Amino acid sequence: MYRVDLNCDLGESFGNYTLGMDEKVIPLITSANIACGFHASDPDVMAKTIKLAKKSGIQVGAHPGFPDLMGFGRRNMSVTPEEAKHYVLYQIGALDAFCRMNGIRLQHVKPHGALYNMAAKDYELAKGICEAIASYDRNLIVLALSGGELARAAKDMGLRVALEVFADRAYEEDGSLVNRRKEGAVITDEDIAIERVIRMVKEQKVTAITGKDIEIKADSICVHGDGEKALDFVKKIRESFERENIEICSLSEL
Amino acid sequence: MYRVDLNCDLGESFGNYTLGMDEKVIPLITSANIACGFHASDPDVMAKTIKLAKKSGIQVGAHPGFPDLMGFGRRNMSVTPEEAKHYVLYQIGALDAFCRMNGIRLQHVKPHGALYNMAAKDYELAKGICEAIASYDRNLIVLALSGGELARAAKDMGLRVALEVFADRAYEEDGSLVNRRKEGAVITDEDIAIERVIRMVKEQKVTAITGKDIEIKADSICVHGDGEKALDFVKKIRESFERENIEICSLSEL
Amino acid sequence: MYRVDLNCDLGESFGNYTLGMDEKVIPLITSANIACGFHASDPDVMAKTIKLAKKSGIQVGAHPGFPDLMGFGRRNMSVTPEEAKHYVLYQIGALDAFCRMNGIRLQHVKPHGALYNMAAKDYELAKGICEAIASYDRNLIVLALSGGELARAAKDMGLRVALEVFADRAYEEDGSLVNRRKEGAVITDEDIAIERVIRMVKEQKVTAITGKDIEIKADSICVHGDGEKALDFVKKIRESFERENIEICSLSEL
Amino acid sequence: MYRVDLNCDLGESFGNYTLGMDEKVIPLITSANIACGFHASDPDVMAKTIKLAKKSGIQVGAHPGFPDLMGFGRRNMSVTPEEAKHYVLYQIGALDAFCRMNGIRLQHVKPHGALYNMAAKDYELAKGICEAIASYDRNLIVLALSGGELARAAKDMGLRVALEVFADRAYEEDGSLVNRRKEGAVITDEDIAIERVIRMVKEQKVTAITGKDIEIKADSICVHGDGEKALDFVKKIRESFERENIEICSLSEL
Repeated sequence: MYRVDLNCDLGESFGNYTLGMDEKVIPLITSANIACGFHASDPDVMAKTIKLAKKSGIQVGAHPGFPDLMGFGRRNMSVTPEEAKHYVLYQIGALDAFCRMNGIRLQHVKPHGALYNMAAKDYELAKGICEAIASYDRNLIVLALSGGELARAAKDMGLRVALEVFADRAYEEDGSLVNRRKEGAVITDEDIAIERVIRMVKEQKVTAITGKDIEIKADSICVHGDGEKALDFVKKIRESFERENIEICSLSEL
Repeated sequence: MYRVDLNCDLGESFGNYTLGMDEKVIPLITSANIACGFHASDPDVMAKTIKLAKKSGIQVGAHPGFPDLMGFGRRNMSVTPEEAKHYVLYQIGALDAFCRMNGIRLQHVKPHGALYNMAAKDYELAKGICEAIASYDRNLIVLALSGGELARAAKDMGLRVALEVFADRAYEEDGSLVNRRKEGAVITDEDIAIERVIRMVKEQKVTAITGKDIEIKADSICVHGDGEKALDFVKKIRESFERENIEICSLSEL
Repeated sequence: MYRVDLNCDLGESFGNYTLGMDEKVIPLITSANIACGFHASDPDVMAKTIKLAKKSGIQVGAHPGFPDLMGFGRRNMSVTPEEAKHYVLYQIGALDAFCRMNGIRLQHVKPHGALYNMAAKDYELAKGICEAIASYDRNLIVLALSGGELARAAKDMGLRVALEVFADRAYEEDGSLVNRRKEGAVITDEDIAIERVIRMVKEQKVTAITGKDIEIKADSICVHGDGEKALDFVKKIRESFERENIEICSLSEL
Repeated sequence: MYRVDLNCDLGESFGNYTLGMDEKVIPLITSANIACGFHASDPDVMAKTIKLAKKSGIQVGAHPGFPDLMGFGRRNMSVTPEEAKHYVLYQIGALDAFCRMNGIRLQHVKPHGALYNMAAKDYELAKGICEAIASYDRNLIVLALSGGELARAAKDMGLRVALEVFADRAYEEDGSLVNRRKEGAVITDEDIAIERVIRMVKEQKVTAITGKDIEIKADSICVHGDGEKALDFVKKIRESFERENIEICSLSEL
């Protein structure tokens, strides 16, 4: 029996601005990455999101990002590992306060956007992030790009790690994601995408953009809830998993 | 034997900006109110400040403020009690994460600036703040203006309360602070200020600006560390307290 | 022949967040109040919005607000008249830079949200705002609540003023808007709303919430573009104005 | 007769935070680069700074930076040339509004910190910045690193350019500044620093860190006003320039 987690970013609204279809995607996923007020969200949104997650019973994780609301945390910033450590620690603590108010536990931490991408490639930065997580709670699961530096740093520090794969993204031979600006970076054919993700889960393999098969481990699949099309795709993934006897469960149940 | 706490705002630097003489005032006080990144401070400053506080052995509290860095949290903002609750919860959690990293415990929460002043007058707002504190940790002490609404709300909710008085501020007959814009609002004569504070501690009385004596309870005295003059005044207070057999101890030892 | 302007807030998106149906409301209005980066918008959104406005030929104005992105500038802040002056001046200059890039001229300034409401009641604050406008460009039209203090301050300073009325809001006998929290503050019946606004334009009269008729002058009507329902209401207003021989033209053509 | 400008960053305070000794450095310089509210400053500080500059008669320029107050604009951010263009345009307009209020003219634009460094190496980014400047006012002088890409882009667009050199920094053979993290990046011996800058002005040459002499053109020298030591160094430079018959004048008088 194969098991895998479905994770999705949640709680990315801010003030008067609404983003994402949180209520609709929650029934479809097992783990939610919740924005913490740096790249998105604010204390009111966090209160509402954690309440919603509690009600639904899905597991929640902190989704810390760069202090760049204008760029939605998607722009690389040359922060030091020490700064990254403090930014992540601050955001975990802030989000966890809302978990405490609602009597639930944080399950994991997944860095957001540019911080996620940079940490997948920069071991020192990744170590800073892991130090924040370890110093807050060694039981937190680090949700990291399969094969990336964050996963490696977390393992080196003895932290629990869950490896994430992307259904709709092409991979380089070294296991890194193909840069979005390159041709073929995004898998647009949903059937192919689903086929690929099933193979990643069952065979721990994926065909890189070069055509070569590479090893890849998949504990969790990143899905999106920012539109009807995205929601339909998650439903399709769930249906195909049922056919393939892949059980969907949260990171903590893996 | 009389006992009283000396509290001071700490960790109010931000990014490239330095404010306050934290290292110099720490040996003179027993409780530090540490900014949490809304009206002042950032994750790096918080990391540094909590480390410093730990090393010195003084007690630390969260000092949450309005999300108004430009105004240093000193401008009234018409937030709802719900918003205030979430802002305070967010900031407590964020600061506490740095306490966890350093293996120390938060002792208290004291709202900052305009939030402090508004909560002293608005029971509903005060209740929102207290709900945040109670939902985070019922052992946290609420440091509130002696005689104000925040102190009342905290008591009503069964929280631990410490009452704060000001050495250098005049009082109205109802126990509220005289508005800074009014003549005589600030006591500039240091000897008179010290005399007043000793009387507040020993006799639980102070002469209001009208000339009438009023009741006032003093668990903690607010002092400042933002300049040599302020530091000298704290030293003077400490010397006079020694002469008067007033023991200085942290809120948790009261 | 009666003439009136239809104004609408525009360009209130921010970073990754989209707000309002700017492209759809533009053909229906004559003057756009464009957010300047404090309560909403950012430089990219401003560039895009001004470009759009230029293409459509509608007139544009600066829509400065409080530095409160989290509260969308809707929360009262106790700023000084001097601070308000500088905030407004900063935002006018920033927006005008995008007008210069596109070779168009700023027509007017309308404060946003809480700043608008506070300026309608506080003459000193209103004066601060008007000083900013006057020092930037004395040809700018101040778009202000009909009967409010901002209109009065602008007139006292010799600035051009356009008086704004609301189709969907009830009025107190003194000409101020009924507080949104009061019963009956918002006129939900569209036909009644349109009838009222026609009467304001033609007879310069409106029935206050008390039942008494009051004098009111209407140079511009505030409409909204934040949903299909709002757009339909603007269309209805336009149709009724055609029937009533009320010509819709921009503030500068009045 | 040799002529050169002395430029210094000014108006970098923010809210309750004070930075720099603006009043003391103003009499020593000819051009001030004034922060515009992104990496430092706020509308009140800008009002005060422009007023001060006007009184003193020195020339002022906009000093736009990244939207990274926490990092003081010193951290690289992967913005697009389009974003940079809009950020710079926004900040120029905002600052110029305060110039208009005071009846003075903007002389130049010098990007700040990481934006300056990135623009010196990235032609496309530099072009974005120059497009903002050109679209605002083609008479503005672009103050750019001597030999860098911003200077090249500005020339290519037909803008006026002033080339900046650093007295206290070592140069690579290609004319770029030696990275601060490298040994020898900062010239700490003041006499050597002054000797170097005199040679740059008179002979248009400087010895690179490799020991090889390179060509360098110096229209303006960057000095600092953030401490007594920095001020003394500026005085020393001025004295040595007098001895060497190097006249100090603003960019617009070159």
